[in-house]
Amino acid sequence: MNAGLARLSLNQATTQRWGVKEAAEGCARAGVAAIGLWREKVAAYGLKASAELVRELGLSVSSLCRGGFFPAATAAGRRANLDENRRAIEEAAALGTDILVLVCGGLPEGGGRDLASARQMVADGIAELIPFAAEHGVKLGIEPLHPMFAGDRSVIVSLGQANDLAESLGAESLGAQQVGVVIDVYHVWWDPQVYREIARAAPYTLGFHVNDWLAPPPDVLMGRGMMGDGVIELRRLRRAVDEAGYTGPIEVEIFNRDLWDLPGDEVLALTKARFAEHVF
Amino acid sequence: MNAGLARLSLNQATTQRWGVKEAAEGCARAGVAAIGLWREKVAAYGLKASAELVRELGLSVSSLCRGGFFPAATAAGRRANLDENRRAIEEAAALGTDILVLVCGGLPEGGGRDLASARQMVADGIAELIPFAAEHGVKLGIEPLHPMFAGDRSVIVSLGQANDLAESLGAESLGAQQVGVVIDVYHVWWDPQVYREIARAAPYTLGFHVNDWLAPPPDVLMGRGMMGDGVIELRRLRRAVDEAGYTGPIEVEIFNRDLWDLPGDEVLALTKARFAEHVF
Repeated sequence: MNAGLARLSLNQATTQRWGVKEAAEGCARAGVAAIGLWREKVAAYGLKASAELVRELGLSVSSLCRGGFFPAATAAGRRANLDENRRAIEEAAALGTDILVLVCGGLPEGGGRDLASARQMVADGIAELIPFAAEHGVKLGIEPLHPMFAGDRSVIVSLGQANDLAESLGAESLGAQQVGVVIDVYHVWWDPQVYREIARAAPYTLGFHVNDWLAPPPDVLMGRGMMGDGVIELRRLRRAVDEAGYTGPIEVEIFNRDLWDLPGDEVLALTKARFAEHVF
Repeated sequence: MNAGLARLSLNQATTQRWGVKEAAEGCARAGVAAIGLWREKVAAYGLKASAELVRELGLSVSSLCRGGFFPAATAAGRRANLDENRRAIEEAAALGTDILVLVCGGLPEGGGRDLASARQMVADGIAELIPFAAEHGVKLGIEPLHPMFAGDRSVIVSLGQANDLAESLGAESLGAQQVGVVIDVYHVWWDPQVYREIARAAPYTLGFHVNDWLAPPPDVLMGRGMMGDGVIELRRLRRAVDEAGYTGPIEVEIFNRDLWDLPGDEVLALTKARFAEHVF
């Protein structure tokens, strides 16, 4: 077996029609050792049942998706968002993963246009979560999203910006690197600074996600491709992340309706083949 | 009249169903003093006829769209692209505008994934055009495109990167600033460095385009909004560009099918109203 395959993790967004049970059993059947779980799906199967199932199957949970979405137009809204993040941290701990992926949120709903202020809300929100995350042994992984999501999903749009945030918040967390970054090739591949920022992120890279960018993109949200179907230099990016010292799981996370229409076992088989061919 | 309206220019992509004649006459009727023309539409109406028409109507041509698309998989392909750019430069000169907007091109067709090499092809291509552009009195305006176009339309994806290119090529053009940048809010609004880069671009800002970013974006290509319908801090960006010293025309360029379905005169009236309300 390709040595890299030992690091493959299925982010369950890739097999959207599978619940936790089907995805975990599918991973076990396919010899995929890790899984990235989504909160909605964990809730549907039950938190305790999900934790037990992955333990019984011997799977490790590479991350929980997702916390974040900090900005809101009102203080009450921001407090509610923080409460939701605390629940996500508790769930991550219960599932036995130490990584909560943060999609930081876009501009506040209701006509907000002030990017700088939304970015400040993100920084303030993460800072406030740090002690709670530390108590639960969970690290907060800031995932910069592609700039095309700046309006509605993440005002954190580049790895450099996520690194700035991780470093300023890391300093606040008194040496314990409770905040880091999650690097998804789809979101960062276009960036002229990406290799420099990957190297810089070395001390606090908490995750690495692969998929592909189709050109031209067929859809804003659902246009991600299977590795090899697009234009991203996957192997070069994977090597850069490895050379920076990251040795953790590599999640395959693909939002793509055509892929979702395939039987999950086929998606997993294709994922493994393409991972071996294009990532390692 | 709002003083800013004197700087309004209609980029004819906004009134896609109008040809050069209808758009130019529409501008004259609406009291819009400048127009940004597209090569295909100029070709359809005739280069000489287009030049005469805008002159007769007293319109100034704020720019010609577009040159660029430099990368190609073969040397012959790259040469053909340069020839096409030379024709575009000649057309700009014939139309009486000194600005050719460059959309620099994505990865070469046919499976190319090497971003660095495509970026080098862009730099080499522009460098080669400089003497020809200078002879014709035409400046080359690098328009960085939103990173979501990195695969298929422009490997130049941020204003910082365009500035780097303009500065390195500007140095090569022996003091004559033959290469500059065109700033379109749609493409740069998300960038944490945008205000710094707007200030930096001051000596060579050749154009400024406004429209809006709808959140969430309904479409990759056709999702641009009318000013005020989206989330971009238009007035803040316009002021920043002005404070940097730019005093030229401000083109409204909107690719949006719903807008294209409206009668052109209505689009122009709406454009003027929204320009006054959200840009100035």
